[in-house]
Order: sequence, then structure tokens, then C-alpha cells
Amino acid sequence: MKTGKAELVCTGSELLEGKLNLYAPLFHERLRPLGFRLTREQSSGDDLEAIADCIKGALRRASLVLVCGGLGPTFDDLTRQAAAKALGRKVVLSGACRQALSRAFRLRRLPPNLLDQARIVEGAKPIENVNGTAFGEVLTVGRRLLVLLPGPRREWEPMFPGRLEAGLKAFFGLPPLAAVKLRSAGLGEPQAERLLRPAMRRYPGASYTILAGQGTVDFIVSGDDSRGVVSRAAAACRRLLGGALYGEGETTLPEALGAALKARGRTAAAAESCTGGRAAGLITDAPGSSAWFNGGVVAYSNAAKVRLLGVKAGTLKRRGAVSAECAAEMAAGARKVFRSDYAFSVTGIAGPGGGTAEKPVGLVWFGLAGPRGTRTFSRRFRGDRALVRERAANFILDELRKIIE
Amino acid sequence: MKTGKAELVCTGSELLEGKLNLYAPLFHERLRPLGFRLTREQSSGDDLEAIADCIKGALRRASLVLVCGGLGPTFDDLTRQAAAKALGRKVVLSGACRQALSRAFRLRRLPPNLLDQARIVEGAKPIENVNGTAFGEVLTVGRRLLVLLPGPRREWEPMFPGRLEAGLKAFFGLPPLAAVKLRSAGLGEPQAERLLRPAMRRYPGASYTILAGQGTVDFIVSGDDSRGVVSRAAAACRRLLGGALYGEGETTLPEALGAALKARGRTAAAAESCTGGRAAGLITDAPGSSAWFNGGVVAYSNAAKVRLLGVKAGTLKRRGAVSAECAAEMAAGARKVFRSDYAFSVTGIAGPGGGTAEKPVGLVWFGLAGPRGTRTFSRRFRGDRALVRERAANFILDELRKIIE
Repeated sequence: MKTGKAELVCTGSELLEGKLNLYAPLFHERLRPLGFRLTREQSSGDDLEAIADCIKGALRRASLVLVCGGLGPTFDDLTRQAAAKALGRKVVLSGACRQALSRAFRLRRLPPNLLDQARIVEGAKPIENVNGTAFGEVLTVGRRLLVLLPGPRREWEPMFPGRLEAGLKAFFGLPPLAAVKLRSAGLGEPQAERLLRPAMRRYPGASYTILAGQGTVDFIVSGDDSRGVVSRAAAACRRLLGGALYGEGETTLPEALGAALKARGRTAAAAESCTGGRAAGLITDAPGSSAWFNGGVVAYSNAAKVRLLGVKAGTLKRRGAVSAECAAEMAAGARKVFRSDYAFSVTGIAGPGGGTAEKPVGLVWFGLAGPRGTRTFSRRFRGDRALVRERAANFILDELRKIIE
Repeated sequence: MKTGKAELVCTGSELLEGKLNLYAPLFHERLRPLGFRLTREQSSGDDLEAIADCIKGALRRASLVLVCGGLGPTFDDLTRQAAAKALGRKVVLSGACRQALSRAFRLRRLPPNLLDQARIVEGAKPIENVNGTAFGEVLTVGRRLLVLLPGPRREWEPMFPGRLEAGLKAFFGLPPLAAVKLRSAGLGEPQAERLLRPAMRRYPGASYTILAGQGTVDFIVSGDDSRGVVSRAAAACRRLLGGALYGEGETTLPEALGAALKARGRTAAAAESCTGGRAAGLITDAPGSSAWFNGGVVAYSNAAKVRLLGVKAGTLKRRGAVSAECAAEMAAGARKVFRSDYAFSVTGIAGPGGGTAEKPVGLVWFGLAGPRGTRTFSRRFRGDRALVRERAANFILDELRKIIE
């Protein structure tokens, strides 16, 4: 299989001082269809020597090197100079870039800091930036390419679809790597791995990656599909996953739930205690969710459970808020008040406080109310407050999806 | 200033195939109090040669090298072998590790895959793993230290407070780097930078980092504080930020809001349309929020706004759901139905669809109801659906905080 090796160099002291580096997954997604695998990522502070050293090392190993960040107009933007140093070239003023900036800003004479943005590494082909002043730069280094990109995603992302992708295809001519992302809920990571092992054994020609979420597991089958290996392996995985498969590609669990409801002309509503709006928040992340989601109540206090959802005071007294009875009354109440076809409820102990021997931290009761009545479930989730809340939200969205499908 | 250079090597193909790398910010927080700055991070796939190459490079540049991941018992766990190769040493069976595993698993004879976990690089000092079978390893390489750590956070994190921190202090004896994190809301990144520039000019002996969130900006002042430079610079920044400063350290905006309400014995509630539960979700992320947050309504449909919050049908007809009048009625309705001292409302057009010339995508109306009546605001946020929602949620939490404080 003909695969290109690509390396990523991320620049910016903030990446080593607390800011999360989001680049690698984003570039991975962009590079795979172009036939490249990301084989190393390096993050360096705003230090000319260090950036130049990262670039030199990457160019020794990979046929494509992407450098992200450090092309802005301020003192700590050093990527141009570092790339020039790594290649033993100069930074020069580009007439074409200067004209493009003059046009964009309607200025006949550019002020010094803007004029600096027209400087590029000798021999670079500039790529226009529709959302900023820093040009991308493509440099041919023997049989390798070095690409400099501005840091902000809204600036570098528009550069791919046009000139950059065409340039990479023309220069390297690699077959695209196919990838199928299968998304499941309700399985743990080891469980999913065991379930899918027969497909992995049968189709060793494909590559497999498992990514565990909070109560969700993504399974990526990838490789050269010119002989159909990836397609056949993915089909085998689909069969093995069965009802646990909620979607493919970038479909989210709430989107899968929404599609199932929409296809049947049904609506849903939410009654949340311990998840405190997280489940409704996940649902309404999906554009167009207003077509099938009527709304929800965050009934954090017992008084709110009684007043807004019609939970009986006696239920709370006898059974407590974290109980099957309360979950059932919350779900039935939400279905009624939002006049929806379905409603779910979540009530549990997310921690860190509030647990008892009988009702430990992580215990969550769920209700599902629908045209055929109300069901309840309970689960005990491991992890801290944030994990318990996210796993509980994903769990009930998936249970609702399964009932509807 | 005496600062140690540390480098991080992260191993695991998943880090180059779509999984977010969370290590750098976590290790940054751990290393700063020990007197180290992170100067480079490298991520490598599960490839023995590549990991060894990353380690060799890092040991040439830094006095402390941490390698994270790849110490498990499966075929793709190669960090031990890679470290041995980088140092020209062997991997050997450790009697002490073997005994510790025998005790932990109450087995006199370890099965082969568990026995493999007792193998360490020649000369390494093992560190016990309270949540797993992979030992941490500390290797002295001349005047440098190489530390191998298991990948899962729950396994490596407990290794720091005890032996690892003590070992690093004893070996290097560096003064700790002080750091003050000031957290602000309501300022953009360039605005915050302009505001704080006088402090940065006056105290050039400290280092400064700006981290922009969605409608929030963190400002970190760090350095050697043995002469009080960091403390004085942080005090100057505090004065400059004024009311925009909502908290310090790891305090979140909802926690700051909660502390302000709790101190005054007051409660709050939420009425959300376009944020769809995100604001309530942020609030209930904070442990103990039930003491001051009564709950919320996600009134995604107009019918829910009328039925649950008492918004007048005439208001929706005349002004629409995205209007000052609707925002005011939503906030007043939530305050009443949850019997809280304060309530806020959010109603806007998060996009991508639904915008008009008069009410474009990003336009959001807010209401704040309190003992002294109801106020409304509007803002136009830039960005996609997720950004508009997060910025809107942070905006109104901060406005409520300012009114209460």
C-alpha cells in the first residue's frame, strides 16, 4: 500500500503552558483522504532555534511536513524565519502578496506590520487566507513538501479544499486512504474490542482504531480500499455491532436519536436532575433539533420536581429523589407538560458528595415514558462527577433511540 | 532564574489517528511547581524506532524527559524496549516488581503477561502503580532524568505526590515556579491584552500567557517569585482587570456565580431557549450547585415558553421569540415558577439556519429577573452554532454574577 508519511509541527508557547492542542486530530482528518498518515507531531514554544530544529527533523523523516502557527505580525511569530533557517534560505518580500493585501485593505501603502505579512520564504508559493492576513506557504524541498499554515482553524481550514489539496495531489499522486467510522453506544472499550475481533482477524489488510468516549465507542476501519478490503471489513463490523451501532462518520448520538424520531414524526422531552441540563444540551447541539425536541425541565430541587413535573411529595418522602418511582413520575410528567410522544428522566448521585451505603455516588435512575407506558432502569457509573453526568446522559439518549428504532 | 527544561514524549498511534492529546496541559501543571518548564512535546505512534528516536532527541535537549504511555502488556506497548534502545541498555526482570505483583494479585506464580509487567529497563527505579500493573520507571542518564509513566491519567497521576516529586526535587533542587491564574469574562483577547499591557511593561521579570475561552480570558503570570515579582505583577493585573475578574486558579465562572449567591443566601433559576440546557449544564457542573440553583426550563418550542414560563402568546406573535419582551417574560416566569431570588433567560438564533436580515444568526436576547425587577440585553455573537451557544451561556452567567456582586 502506497501511503505518504506526514509530520506536524505546532508552534506556540501556549501549547506547552496549558492550552489544549487540538491540531493533530484535525489534520489527521484532512490528510487521510490525501493518502497521508500522520507519523509524528511536535509542539514547540515560540523559539526560532527550536522551531527550525523541529522542521529539520521532520523533513528528514517525512515526505510532507505541515507547520501550524507563528505566521502572525507580532514579535513571537517566528515560523517564517525558522523555516528559512531550516532550509538555508532567505525571507523575501513577495510582490504578489503585497498587491493582494493592498487590494484587500484598500491601501496603496501598507503600514509596516501589514507589509511584514507580505514576506515569505524564498521560493514559497503563497496560499491566500480568506480570514486573516497571514499567507500559507508551500515549499518544495527536493522530493518533499514543507507547508506553513497560520494557527487559527478558520484561517488554515479554507486553504485545504482549493489550492492546497490540488497541490498535494499533483505533487505526490497518492491513492486516498479510505476510512469508515462506526459509532456505538452501550458497550465498553474491551467489550467492543472482543465483539469486533473476528472481523479484525478475517481482514488483516485493513487498519483498526478504537476510540472510547463516555459510554460510547468509535471504531475506525481504514486503509487502501482499491481491492475492497476496507469496505468488506466495515460491513463485517456493522453486522457484529448490530443494534449497538447508532451511526457512522460524524453522526452524533443525539443526531441519530433525532433522525429516528423525525422519520416517525415523533417528539421527545427531558426531565433532568443530576445531569442538570447536560442531556438537553447534547440534544440541542444538533442543528434542527427543534423539529423533534420540545424542551426539558432541569428539576434540580425537590420542589421543582413536584411543581413542574408533578412528582408526588409522598414519592419523594418514601422513596427519595433517586428511585425508580421518582424517575417514572419525572418522565411521565415531562411527557405530559411538553405534550411530547416520548420523554426521558435522569435522577442520580453524580458526586462527589451525597452518596450513602444504600445509594452510592454514581447510582442513577432513569425513566422512559412513551405511548405504551413508562419504563425505568438503573445503572451505577464509575468516575468523577463530570464522567457520571456525561455517561448518564449518553446512556439515556441511547436507550430512547433503541426503543424508537 | 534557575528553570529546568523538561520535554514530554507521548506514545500511542491513537494520538495521531483522531484522539485528542490531553497530556501537555496536565504535565505542565505538574511540572511548574517543581521548577520545570515544558519546552517541547512529541507524539509518536506505536513504533519502537520512532519512540527511541523521540527519547534520544529529548535527552539531548532537556534535563528531564517524561515518556507517557506504552507500558501495558500488549504487543503495541513498546516504551520499555524503546527507552532501553535509546540508552543502549537491556530490559531486565525486576525481583522487587515481581514480588509486588505477586502480593497484589495473591499469586505465587505470575502468568506470562503479568510477569512481563515486572520487566524494567536496566538500572531503573520502579514506582508503584496503585491503579494498574505497569510500574513507573526513573532512569538516571548522567545529569539527566528519564521517567517512564503509564498512559492512563488515573495510573500516572498518583505517582507524582509521593516518590516522583521527592525524587525530582532531590535530584535537581530547583526553586518552584510560581504561577497566578487570573480569570476574566466579558473581555475579548486583544482587549484583555491592551488592558494588561501596563502591568506587563512594569514587571518584565515575570512571564505572561493569555488563554482565550468563549467569552472568557485567562491570564497567567508566572516565574520565580523569590523576589516577589510575580506577586506584584499579579496584584497590578488584578487592579487593571477590576470587575471583569471573576476568579483565580481553577475557579470556574459558575463557581464564582455560586459563591456570590451563597454568600448572600440567594438562589437562581434558568430559562433557556437557544442554549438548550448548556447554561444549566455549566452551572450544575459545579459540585454543590443544588444549594443555590433551583433548576431551569429548556423552553425550546414556543408552546413550552407559554405553558411552562408564562410567556404571553401575544408577545410571541407580535415580537417573536427572539426579542427583549420574550426574554423579559421568560426570566420573570422562571423566577416565579422556581421561586428563586434571581432568574436569567437566553433566547436567540444559534444557527446555522433560522437567521433573517432583521434577526441574523448570532443575535441573542437575554433577561435578568431579580428582586428589583427585570432587565434585558442583546448581543450579536460571531462563530458557529456551538460557539454562539457557549458564548451566550458564559455571557449571561457573568452578567448575573456582576449584578449580584
